[in-house]
Amino acid sequence: MKEKLILHEDPISGNCYKIRLVAAHLGLPLERRSYDVRKGETRTSAFLTGVNANGRIPVLQIGDRFLPESSAACVYLADGSTLIPEDRFDRADMLRWMFFEQYNHEPNVATLRFWLAFVGADNLSEPQRAQLAPKRAAGEAALGLMDSHLRTRAFFVADRPTLADITLYAYTHVAGEGGFDLARWPAIEAWCARVAALPGHIAMTA
Amino acid sequence: MKEKLILHEDPISGNCYKIRLVAAHLGLPLERRSYDVRKGETRTSAFLTGVNANGRIPVLQIGDRFLPESSAACVYLADGSTLIPEDRFDRADMLRWMFFEQYNHEPNVATLRFWLAFVGADNLSEPQRAQLAPKRAAGEAALGLMDSHLRTRAFFVADRPTLADITLYAYTHVAGEGGFDLARWPAIEAWCARVAALPGHIAMTA
Repeated sequence: MKEKLILHEDPISGNCYKIRLVAAHLGLPLERRSYDVRKGETRTSAFLTGVNANGRIPVLQIGDRFLPESSAACVYLADGSTLIPEDRFDRADMLRWMFFEQYNHEPNVATLRFWLAFVGADNLSEPQRAQLAPKRAAGEAALGLMDSHLRTRAFFVADRPTLADITLYAYTHVAGEGGFDLARWPAIEAWCARVAALPGHIAMTA
Repeated sequence: MKEKLILHEDPISGNCYKIRLVAAHLGLPLERRSYDVRKGETRTSAFLTGVNANGRIPVLQIGDRFLPESSAACVYLADGSTLIPEDRFDRADMLRWMFFEQYNHEPNVATLRFWLAFVGADNLSEPQRAQLAPKRAAGEAALGLMDSHLRTRAFFVADRPTLADITLYAYTHVAGEGGFDLARWPAIEAWCARVAALPGHIAMTA
């Protein structure tokens, strides 16, 4: 990678951690720029015009180009590495789990973690409170599906670590902070231990 | 493609249309199997064990393998075609818009279309009713972001049609059925016309 890589992030975000984790596995240096989403620092006009018009982190800056969406940034970094399978079906199957993560997992597991561990149950709005039960049920369904898939496999795709594992690990391993008891899903707990034991792994707080 | 392709779908679903549209652009034959999501036909035990444990359509069947998630299926079909850019950044940027579509656009624009045009406003549950206003605002924000991006571009990535355009087109061109007035976003209307005029394009009802 010839161009300088800058990660625009909030250190509490699992979506940002995914990118740091991929970079760590690949030995790529990342400069980090922090924003506090709870203080609205990604909704300022400087951020909206200069970094991401969608007002969200993470954004991976590659030289003078900006790439939002954590999963797209992971694919960019891992292009050509063993974290992306060479087989056509396996590569699409990896993306299948990454889209599952953003559609079925993150809006439930990550949102409940953010609301309960960072915003605080007492500070939630009425519409947020109304979403607690549906998001709990949907998060449990996503974790149940993962557990069932992992009962017969070491990793999500092709039995070796890919971006599917890295992106799903980010919010799964801290699901307890959102009130999900991972002890209910032993295949997930065993898989989390396998992912954390991979060479190159770094902790979310690293 | 040597293996037979079967699309497990509901014809009213824009997510399923994406896959048919990619196949049409590439001239790939697709056998279609229909399920009615409103009758729970994707939640039967036969479907859950034989097609998709996540209980959702579309699923692209490739020989005897099953690939859920519409965007992953589109990438599988378009692998090696001009619908996926060769440039590393452009390819990741295409995925960026596809993840945006599933995270910011579909849960709002497509869900309101389904609720209002297919379930019916009078038949919504209380939690669904409580989500009408937030989903309206989030859908408008997604459309606003698209419009702003398209004001200076013919297509989403690299100024030629890619999977980003095809996947975003599917629910955008019928956003009116969810109560979104596309006349508010003229750059989107012009882009919709460009996508519909591409050689190989088919209508959602085809």
